[in-house]
Amino acid sequence: MFGELKIFSGNANRPLAESICKFAGVELGNCEIIKFSNDNIKVAYKESLRGKDVYIIQPSCAPVNEGLMELLIMIDAAKNASANRVTAVVPYFPYVRSDKKDQPRISITAKLVANLIKASGADRVMTMNLHSPQIQGFFNIPCDHLMAGKILNSYCKNDGIENSVVVAPDAGSAKHAGKHARNLGLPLAILDKRRADDSETPLMENIIGDVKGKKAIIFDDEVASAGSLIEAAELLEKNGASEIVAYCVHGVLSGHAIERLEKSNIKKLVVTDTVFVPEHKKSEKLIIVSVAELFSEVITFTNQGIPISNLYNGH
Amino acid sequence: MFGELKIFSGNANRPLAESICKFAGVELGNCEIIKFSNDNIKVAYKESLRGKDVYIIQPSCAPVNEGLMELLIMIDAAKNASANRVTAVVPYFPYVRSDKKDQPRISITAKLVANLIKASGADRVMTMNLHSPQIQGFFNIPCDHLMAGKILNSYCKNDGIENSVVVAPDAGSAKHAGKHARNLGLPLAILDKRRADDSETPLMENIIGDVKGKKAIIFDDEVASAGSLIEAAELLEKNGASEIVAYCVHGVLSGHAIERLEKSNIKKLVVTDTVFVPEHKKSEKLIIVSVAELFSEVITFTNQGIPISNLYNGH
Amino acid sequence: MFGELKIFSGNANRPLAESICKFAGVELGNCEIIKFSNDNIKVAYKESLRGKDVYIIQPSCAPVNEGLMELLIMIDAAKNASANRVTAVVPYFPYVRSDKKDQPRISITAKLVANLIKASGADRVMTMNLHSPQIQGFFNIPCDHLMAGKILNSYCKNDGIENSVVVAPDAGSAKHAGKHARNLGLPLAILDKRRADDSETPLMENIIGDVKGKKAIIFDDEVASAGSLIEAAELLEKNGASEIVAYCVHGVLSGHAIERLEKSNIKKLVVTDTVFVPEHKKSEKLIIVSVAELFSEVITFTNQGIPISNLYNGH
Amino acid sequence: MFGELKIFSGNANRPLAESICKFAGVELGNCEIIKFSNDNIKVAYKESLRGKDVYIIQPSCAPVNEGLMELLIMIDAAKNASANRVTAVVPYFPYVRSDKKDQPRISITAKLVANLIKASGADRVMTMNLHSPQIQGFFNIPCDHLMAGKILNSYCKNDGIENSVVVAPDAGSAKHAGKHARNLGLPLAILDKRRADDSETPLMENIIGDVKGKKAIIFDDEVASAGSLIEAAELLEKNGASEIVAYCVHGVLSGHAIERLEKSNIKKLVVTDTVFVPEHKKSEKLIIVSVAELFSEVITFTNQGIPISNLYNGH
Amino acid sequence: MFGELKIFSGNANRPLAESICKFAGVELGNCEIIKFSNDNIKVAYKESLRGKDVYIIQPSCAPVNEGLMELLIMIDAAKNASANRVTAVVPYFPYVRSDKKDQPRISITAKLVANLIKASGADRVMTMNLHSPQIQGFFNIPCDHLMAGKILNSYCKNDGIENSVVVAPDAGSAKHAGKHARNLGLPLAILDKRRADDSETPLMENIIGDVKGKKAIIFDDEVASAGSLIEAAELLEKNGASEIVAYCVHGVLSGHAIERLEKSNIKKLVVTDTVFVPEHKKSEKLIIVSVAELFSEVITFTNQGIPISNLYNGH
Amino acid sequence: MFGELKIFSGNANRPLAESICKFAGVELGNCEIIKFSNDNIKVAYKESLRGKDVYIIQPSCAPVNEGLMELLIMIDAAKNASANRVTAVVPYFPYVRSDKKDQPRISITAKLVANLIKASGADRVMTMNLHSPQIQGFFNIPCDHLMAGKILNSYCKNDGIENSVVVAPDAGSAKHAGKHARNLGLPLAILDKRRADDSETPLMENIIGDVKGKKAIIFDDEVASAGSLIEAAELLEKNGASEIVAYCVHGVLSGHAIERLEKSNIKKLVVTDTVFVPEHKKSEKLIIVSVAELFSEVITFTNQGIPISNLYNGH
Repeated sequence: MFGELKIFSGNANRPLAESICKFAGVELGNCEIIKFSNDNIKVAYKESLRGKDVYIIQPSCAPVNEGLMELLIMIDAAKNASANRVTAVVPYFPYVRSDKKDQPRISITAKLVANLIKASGADRVMTMNLHSPQIQGFFNIPCDHLMAGKILNSYCKNDGIENSVVVAPDAGSAKHAGKHARNLGLPLAILDKRRADDSETPLMENIIGDVKGKKAIIFDDEVASAGSLIEAAELLEKNGASEIVAYCVHGVLSGHAIERLEKSNIKKLVVTDTVFVPEHKKSEKLIIVSVAELFSEVITFTNQGIPISNLYNGH
Repeated sequence: MFGELKIFSGNANRPLAESICKFAGVELGNCEIIKFSNDNIKVAYKESLRGKDVYIIQPSCAPVNEGLMELLIMIDAAKNASANRVTAVVPYFPYVRSDKKDQPRISITAKLVANLIKASGADRVMTMNLHSPQIQGFFNIPCDHLMAGKILNSYCKNDGIENSVVVAPDAGSAKHAGKHARNLGLPLAILDKRRADDSETPLMENIIGDVKGKKAIIFDDEVASAGSLIEAAELLEKNGASEIVAYCVHGVLSGHAIERLEKSNIKKLVVTDTVFVPEHKKSEKLIIVSVAELFSEVITFTNQGIPISNLYNGH
Repeated sequence: MFGELKIFSGNANRPLAESICKFAGVELGNCEIIKFSNDNIKVAYKESLRGKDVYIIQPSCAPVNEGLMELLIMIDAAKNASANRVTAVVPYFPYVRSDKKDQPRISITAKLVANLIKASGADRVMTMNLHSPQIQGFFNIPCDHLMAGKILNSYCKNDGIENSVVVAPDAGSAKHAGKHARNLGLPLAILDKRRADDSETPLMENIIGDVKGKKAIIFDDEVASAGSLIEAAELLEKNGASEIVAYCVHGVLSGHAIERLEKSNIKKLVVTDTVFVPEHKKSEKLIIVSVAELFSEVITFTNQGIPISNLYNGH
Repeated sequence: MFGELKIFSGNANRPLAESICKFAGVELGNCEIIKFSNDNIKVAYKESLRGKDVYIIQPSCAPVNEGLMELLIMIDAAKNASANRVTAVVPYFPYVRSDKKDQPRISITAKLVANLIKASGADRVMTMNLHSPQIQGFFNIPCDHLMAGKILNSYCKNDGIENSVVVAPDAGSAKHAGKHARNLGLPLAILDKRRADDSETPLMENIIGDVKGKKAIIFDDEVASAGSLIEAAELLEKNGASEIVAYCVHGVLSGHAIERLEKSNIKKLVVTDTVFVPEHKKSEKLIIVSVAELFSEVITFTNQGIPISNLYNGH
Repeated sequence: MFGELKIFSGNANRPLAESICKFAGVELGNCEIIKFSNDNIKVAYKESLRGKDVYIIQPSCAPVNEGLMELLIMIDAAKNASANRVTAVVPYFPYVRSDKKDQPRISITAKLVANLIKASGADRVMTMNLHSPQIQGFFNIPCDHLMAGKILNSYCKNDGIENSVVVAPDAGSAKHAGKHARNLGLPLAILDKRRADDSETPLMENIIGDVKGKKAIIFDDEVASAGSLIEAAELLEKNGASEIVAYCVHGVLSGHAIERLEKSNIKKLVVTDTVFVPEHKKSEKLIIVSVAELFSEVITFTNQGIPISNLYNGH
Repeated sequence: MFGELKIFSGNANRPLAESICKFAGVELGNCEIIKFSNDNIKVAYKESLRGKDVYIIQPSCAPVNEGLMELLIMIDAAKNASANRVTAVVPYFPYVRSDKKDQPRISITAKLVANLIKASGADRVMTMNLHSPQIQGFFNIPCDHLMAGKILNSYCKNDGIENSVVVAPDAGSAKHAGKHARNLGLPLAILDKRRADDSETPLMENIIGDVKGKKAIIFDDEVASAGSLIEAAELLEKNGASEIVAYCVHGVLSGHAIERLEKSNIKKLVVTDTVFVPEHKKSEKLIIVSVAELFSEVITFTNQGIPISNLYNGH
């Protein structure tokens, strides 16, 4: 009904795309992407897309803007090549934290990106763990919002959750962490950090809830520079947490994140493979669990018109 | 530059519109709204709108859908009457809590409403305290998002905040309540309610943070049936709070909210006048503070092209 | 080609939807529609719509604006649930008489409604006996405009048309009534009502054409409060009509329509079931003929891609 | 506010444009329109339009499609030349009678033309006496719908209306003619023409209302080939009308209209100058009254942002 | 997948459409096109289009604007008749030379036409040898751009290319002619015509490259009035070309083109049948080669979802 | 009329923006652009834009995609900050050479970029020397296309043009170079490079026109890696050109362009400052002439609604 399934990958996270293809039992499509000396990207599909159901896998990985333009050009080229349906598969959505106007005269860039993806000709979007679920409303095209909750909880349970507490690293992530707490049957604690008006004076830190003598399991949607994660871990240790681990869906790991992680009191950081982690960022403390099987299921179900709501049951 | 200022009101909250007009020093515009026996609404502006800068004030008040259609028809009629610019002033936004897809096959209705307002011809939207700030991203037209934080905090400080704690009634409102806590210089507590899988078993309730012997000040964006507010108050009392007051921006007060409030242990409920409160819903416990002056400032500034960012500084 | 046929109903006229389903040999789809205490409507489809050909049946019945919002939310939810095609089936179109700008600064609300339906994501519209056929041009999506003429004429002939005259209740409906006259082989008379400039002076009434001693058969597209229908009947009696019956496609029957009908000299009022008639509005004088079979045919033909032009031959 | 007033004319009806300019006290703008040997039209404005308020006068005159393309190109060129506002002034609207889908698989071409005008970049439309008032709803841009009723009635009264009857040439124009009857204080008669199923059998003609010994004043929105007008006149004569005159807003006068008129029993045909009447179509029976002053008023008022609703009071 | 193949023709070039149908093995669809005395076109499809894959063949032939409106009405009617997909097949694109803004305040009319075709509801466009390949970028819908290069080169080789030179009639066509030169393995010469500032002084003509004693083969995309083609031929003769032939894809042949051709020193003019050449324009010097087979292949491949890139390999 | 003039700059070419501001007599606006460690760009205007006429200067410079996203975010933020009009000033347009579909399944990326700029909210675009003038037709918003021809010719004349020939480096640039030749009163020569089918065999090079003993002045729209420019220079030398200079509007100078230039037989390369040339790319052979004054004139004229057509007269 929607045409033959075709999966293509940009340069952002080719291993994830290959992994999804393996689960889906199809070969990764042949698409040439060249970058010229003048910095221009050229995309040329090397097989016919006429009437096909095309999925383009391109999460937001560094270099972010490069990858985003690559995605937009791939969508445009696929649409003009008469693909029947083009789905942008963006496991980690670009500019996902720029989702509100908390200052005057700024851009809600996640919304802008949603508009750009539509303007390029995409028919659908698939993504995972948006920073806030409201971002789904930024799209004027259908958007499948997958959740890595089940996958992370499953690893977490295997790893042992006795005498543990789920920790939200700030008030804004209390709701997200709260869901993990409920699903794991654990109590919840929330970090409340505030800085006095005069920035010289130190940060007043405070933990709402009880962590003493417990294994603290931090849950967040992403880890970028790891700065606030490490601050959180220090605060937890100071307040008597016996062990600290962290689960973050999107392992952006920008700047000195890995060095910081290795020097920190965090025992283990679990992320998914939505963002590509290059070799030099690998660490013994860093565990990567894959979302490829989930994406392959949603893609093949979507291609066949099978409902995917039962795949959504995580959070 | 934008034409003469003209303010009109639908039937949702005429007292608020009149109040805004008084502050702005203009007379409320003359617009006839008739409802026929066949349930159809007819809108006829009784003065010329040609080249005018038109503001239509219509928050979401019961009957909600009636009021929304009235708004859409008013926008359409104003646009066709050659108004230069039409701004929908919607202090309480319709379907604001329907802002995400947390179940399969539902509508993100707040997004749909944003689309309908645009499809009717509005050039801009003004609103207040959206349930989540991301909702601003639902609009493809400029949206001014005002905050009642300063107005509520000011009342709160006058009322006395010694030995008090700010309380978020659930994890989802921790961020919002946290801002109030920071601005008031008070600690934060968060209620963590969970229901076991089998709905027969009772709710496990838990307070994260310390409320014992303190005046608990609940902050939330709206109060509808007041059910969860009163549950929160009971939990706070059980945990030793010495006094309980609540601040909710939008006083929807649907169903038996007022009866419940009067019977409850809540000493005082402070709301704004974004939602019209009819006489029979008035109560000694219910305090209504007005946002009319703030809206009149933003409207007159917008009409004159004066920046409004310094009016935004609450939260 | 268009996916499996799925028919859903809003709350406006569920019996009509069930009737259509029975003729079509399918079961009415499962869609939960909840109205909360805060007046908000929530729509949740309880079965998968992925790749389906969805028809949502929701004529304009009181409460009109409630029903219209329900329709828009149902369309939006269906579209976001990845339905392949969504058709709004609106046998009686909302605000159908608001189809022109005969006063300054009003809305052509039927056009606005057409825009709202499109903005919500509908791919097609089906409707019946629009007040003027030009309304089809309000849509930027394909619109099937069905006619109840054959169904009413067939009842009319069975009822006896000897020594009869078709009557247009005003000049505006002369064309519509004229078609019935031609099809029934009857002469036509037209009522010409005028009010002098000074509204105190009485109405000057006049019948163009001959009704004396004849059975007068009034044809109109809808009957709302029945006020003008009853005035027409009185004028006809005064001018010697021997018997008066009326055929109106859409039985809106608002306000005191039924009481008026029972007290009037109208012997029989024939309407279709496009508008739901509740028990307390039933009357011995009121005959309801069904359009369900016609709609079921058009829906199943449309689902199968079979031409429907031969179903159009009424007027 | 809207920029300096600039009026341009296509080739359809330059005398009308010049006349409008004279009343408005401005000079007709300088725009070169060339038709090449390959049939392509080239439009080049010979003066700056930057920030101007541009009105392009181009009613539908033969050759109709030529004139329509000329209009669309003029709009496009004006928009790209950075005009502040472009208004298409189309006193006789192209394809105005193609306003409904009364056969399967045809186009509602008046709607298509409305879409094309918008797609070319027009901000507003001005037109006159649309065949049906619903056509205003075809536009997604503001549309001023002027009426020539007052102008025609004024001529009609001067000409003498004693012992007269207003005649609608068919049921479809009963409403339009009825308004003239009311405004002139005259009775109304309606022609009811029908053809039996077998087209060989003659037409059964019938007059509803009384014309015997009276001056019959036919009112219609346009006269094209004049065929049905002349049939109407013959029928009126047969039924005893003492004199026959006709008023048609748009004098299309296509084919043999003038020859027919001269040979007919119609004493006088009054039209406006919305459609250009070339010298060879002039006739002693043909009276042309001008709508230029009305258009010049509406244009200058619109340019200055003055309400025009009081100019609308005809029909 | 795209529905049954249906090919229709407007009045522009019915022989081409019939020829395409013959190659495709389908019958030309039945569509009635009437032109009324008032110059209005009416289109009525005489067979069902529901769910069909519709191709409308209408190149730009004189009368150009007439034909373009016919095309737009045919698209609109097909879309409203629920065709599954509508492709405008426009072998010679209207206003194709109006593709840039080389003067102030003109229209890029080829772009306007692209917008009008889309606004009428077309899903795709097929065309041939656009004056510049950039015109493909004017479309927001997929556009297949066919090339007649192979067909013309094949004729050319058969005709003998020994001792020949390919000639570009001006610098602007150097690139196009250069491709032919490369494919035919011939040298290239370019005419460089300039007029001094004072238009009284004669044109300075110059040939860049060597033509002496050679057969000059002029290649251009179209021939309209043939004026510059004949000037080119004269210049070539003056510079010693032994024989002159010309290949132009689109044989517009407007004005006195044929008379000029016959009187000229051009031995043979080869064109394709994209533009209809009426009997009175036939000439012994004029050779018409057909593109029907190529279009029939592209249409049937597109209907079946087969890639067409290998049909593109000409230029 | 359009609001106060405000000029902002992205990071692509701040010196050009400052230069434009100096000529325009305004200060460069204050806009903070931050790049976070996670690669995300944040734009915050530090002054009010309400009702202002905003020009954002951002040509395409390396890193190209970075700069393009920066531009899109700046447009979006300005639009949401209620700027009255936002003009994207893009002297060198991104992906300007990707303007046609000369291979199957590629993107016309210049068109995509035009769509993205519009989707971000820009009201107008200003650019310079597009690779082909047809690209103007890619925009659905007004586009001012400036030409550096006058500026380059003026430098060229000063530099001495006796005994010179203008050279087009390939057939595709013959038209562009031809205009320079005409304006400078010089003859034209064209390089015709071809490679045989078997890529092993060498390139056959050929000069059409006469360069022997002359100063060869190459004109092209841009120089990127300088590869083909240097090949051209070698060919010219081999054919006896006495001296070789080159004029290219956009000095992209990517890869080893400067090293190559210095080693080459090109005496002088003249470019404009549309593209920023960093210090390490400066060379004695490289002359940069500024287009800042021209842009400042067009911007201030546009802001004041003054026609700019007389500024266009170059090419």
